[in-house]
Amino acid sequence: MMKKSPLAPDKFEKLPIIKGVRFATAKAGIKTTGQLDLMLALLSPGTSISGVFTRSSTRSASVLDCQKKIGAEASKGAAILVNSGNANAFTGVKGQDSVNRICKALSVKLHLPKSSIFTSSTGVIGEVLPDQKIINCIDRLASSLSDQSIENAAEAIMTTDTFSKGSSATVDINDQKVSISGIAKGSGMIAPDMATMLVYIFTDAKIESKKLQELIEDITDRTFNCITVDSDTSTSDSLICAATGASGVEVDEHQIFAQALEKVMLDLCQQVVKDGEGATKFITVNITGAATDKDAHKAAMAIANSPLVKTAVAGEDPNWGRIVMAIGKSGAKADRDSLSIWFGPQLVAENGWVSSSYNEDIAANYMRRDDLLIKVDLGVGSSFRTVWTCDLTHDYIKINSDYRS
Amino acid sequence: MMKKSPLAPDKFEKLPIIKGVRFATAKAGIKTTGQLDLMLALLSPGTSISGVFTRSSTRSASVLDCQKKIGAEASKGAAILVNSGNANAFTGVKGQDSVNRICKALSVKLHLPKSSIFTSSTGVIGEVLPDQKIINCIDRLASSLSDQSIENAAEAIMTTDTFSKGSSATVDINDQKVSISGIAKGSGMIAPDMATMLVYIFTDAKIESKKLQELIEDITDRTFNCITVDSDTSTSDSLICAATGASGVEVDEHQIFAQALEKVMLDLCQQVVKDGEGATKFITVNITGAATDKDAHKAAMAIANSPLVKTAVAGEDPNWGRIVMAIGKSGAKADRDSLSIWFGPQLVAENGWVSSSYNEDIAANYMRRDDLLIKVDLGVGSSFRTVWTCDLTHDYIKINSDYRS
Repeated sequence: MMKKSPLAPDKFEKLPIIKGVRFATAKAGIKTTGQLDLMLALLSPGTSISGVFTRSSTRSASVLDCQKKIGAEASKGAAILVNSGNANAFTGVKGQDSVNRICKALSVKLHLPKSSIFTSSTGVIGEVLPDQKIINCIDRLASSLSDQSIENAAEAIMTTDTFSKGSSATVDINDQKVSISGIAKGSGMIAPDMATMLVYIFTDAKIESKKLQELIEDITDRTFNCITVDSDTSTSDSLICAATGASGVEVDEHQIFAQALEKVMLDLCQQVVKDGEGATKFITVNITGAATDKDAHKAAMAIANSPLVKTAVAGEDPNWGRIVMAIGKSGAKADRDSLSIWFGPQLVAENGWVSSSYNEDIAANYMRRDDLLIKVDLGVGSSFRTVWTCDLTHDYIKINSDYRS
Repeated sequence: MMKKSPLAPDKFEKLPIIKGVRFATAKAGIKTTGQLDLMLALLSPGTSISGVFTRSSTRSASVLDCQKKIGAEASKGAAILVNSGNANAFTGVKGQDSVNRICKALSVKLHLPKSSIFTSSTGVIGEVLPDQKIINCIDRLASSLSDQSIENAAEAIMTTDTFSKGSSATVDINDQKVSISGIAKGSGMIAPDMATMLVYIFTDAKIESKKLQELIEDITDRTFNCITVDSDTSTSDSLICAATGASGVEVDEHQIFAQALEKVMLDLCQQVVKDGEGATKFITVNITGAATDKDAHKAAMAIANSPLVKTAVAGEDPNWGRIVMAIGKSGAKADRDSLSIWFGPQLVAENGWVSSSYNEDIAANYMRRDDLLIKVDLGVGSSFRTVWTCDLTHDYIKINSDYRS
């Protein structure tokens, strides 16, 4: 068991209750540690469900199953069942069989069509999911559902996470309250492609499935698709958002709801970075002046994924030469003599060389912070992008070189 | 000073003398350790010179200068001057000024046109090159030239390298001997893009510049462009090949020369990987059955660059799930149920799941070797690719998180 990330929030935020969602958790014995490893979320009839998933070509059985089901109406309600400890990825036809058996058992117990049952699995890849252990817990889960158990749910989906992750927002729309509560897990294999890790967001807003799906895809592009811990993309990345409509407030056209949802997703994705395996520094990489949006993203991700940049940050070294290197290799349009680099407020380099105002002591002092901004203006256009990452430390190696994580 | 890589060869191979090339080395005081940091190679009139260089958009002043000069005839001879300890990269107009001053001083001393003088610099990025220290050594270098000093030259170009790297081949063409001797340096920031690190290859073969350039580019694609230590691409990567013609043997159309050259380049690039920062395992990644050559390269590099694969290898963990993950994220066409994975001779996974013949003890035992083969057949085509990499260990973090490498 790793010690809690030094970047963890002081405590798990108290999340508002979302009418129309109830949670239950259990210890199914999939995790060998005896910790919570199963969570069920039951959603009321009429809930809109949207989701984004990894684009990995070796994605897991449950991801493939969810992708088929997303978008359908949940007129009788819906359920989300998540296990940790086993990813049910690269388990061939047995993997799909497990998903089918779990969905069937839940369908019978909860009186829901199988098309309204979504499952996720996270943990070790390539081992058969012991689905009977999950099925054995279903009666117990169904009888212990509560609208107050989201904090336990956040704990049950953890793997190598060192803290459970939650975020919320409550906004007034037409003088009525709408709430959003979300939970996430993830600390390694984090370089999302379309969606990431496991993320579940619940709201009592009333919104059409199609509209919700558009909103989630758009915001994912600026949040979960802008984080990286180790450049490795999981086979299981899934983000599901369920809108129960229980508040009675239509939000389809309300920018204020979209902003609140973005705030929750941004907070959750940053918490995932703050629990990056071995992380001791949270790094915001901000690119401006890029030729295109794609270039801005490429340059930002090249810095955020560079092991040389990340180890320099771990060593509190203001090694801006490695930032130059990362931009150079990124493939983004850049000109050595047009780019400018800042560490926090300090201009480090400009006009192809170190800035005349640069002071190594000030920069070195800045690097001692645990929340750092690396800002680069490429000076060749007007596109921009912000991404988030963490440093690369001995603990990352330690966590991942232990025999079979 | 890091201890010598456990993957280092027993000793520096004795390289054949190449007629038409003489070497000199010096301690110019650019390295703070007082070690050799300067080497000069003087090439006889009529030498053909070809080169490939990094495509980084932030490449160094000397790389930019060499790129302008490559291809010209060296009718009066040519010179290559290399310093270690300072990369003269991201040093703006001062960087180009340094190159100009060095070339001018060499031109005067050696009676060569500036267009026949090539320089390389390797070491820290962003600090002004103390070119006067180099210029002060030129008289001494010119008076100590010897055709026997290539081993010292290999030492003088090292930075964080833990052993000096050389390789050679001698072949018979039309009953006449042709020799090739090459040296290389590099241990971090290794993910070449067109060329890599610093590599100098000398041969007494007689070959037209244009033909030599084609040959070098072609072979680089299968050798130096197929290695990675840390996915970071240097600003200084340069490979220069000089053919003095002193053997009198025309090799333009001789496949046997191309093969000998490829053998030397392959050996040198593998030595670079074996001296990868912190390396304890040499890993060959072999992809077959890919849809296209590009896909084969993408899949191979995704495995070779994955920090999760590299830390698993460091931990001697036969974690094939991470191989599946890396293929999944690579973007190469792949189908979960068609791919097969081997660790050395052992079939690990096939038909979308662990092979029925897989034995964890045998696999774990195989992983204890320091020379490993990871082979993947994607099962969707007939293209193939082999790349080479090393594991990711605590020493990589240690080397790179020290304050200013």
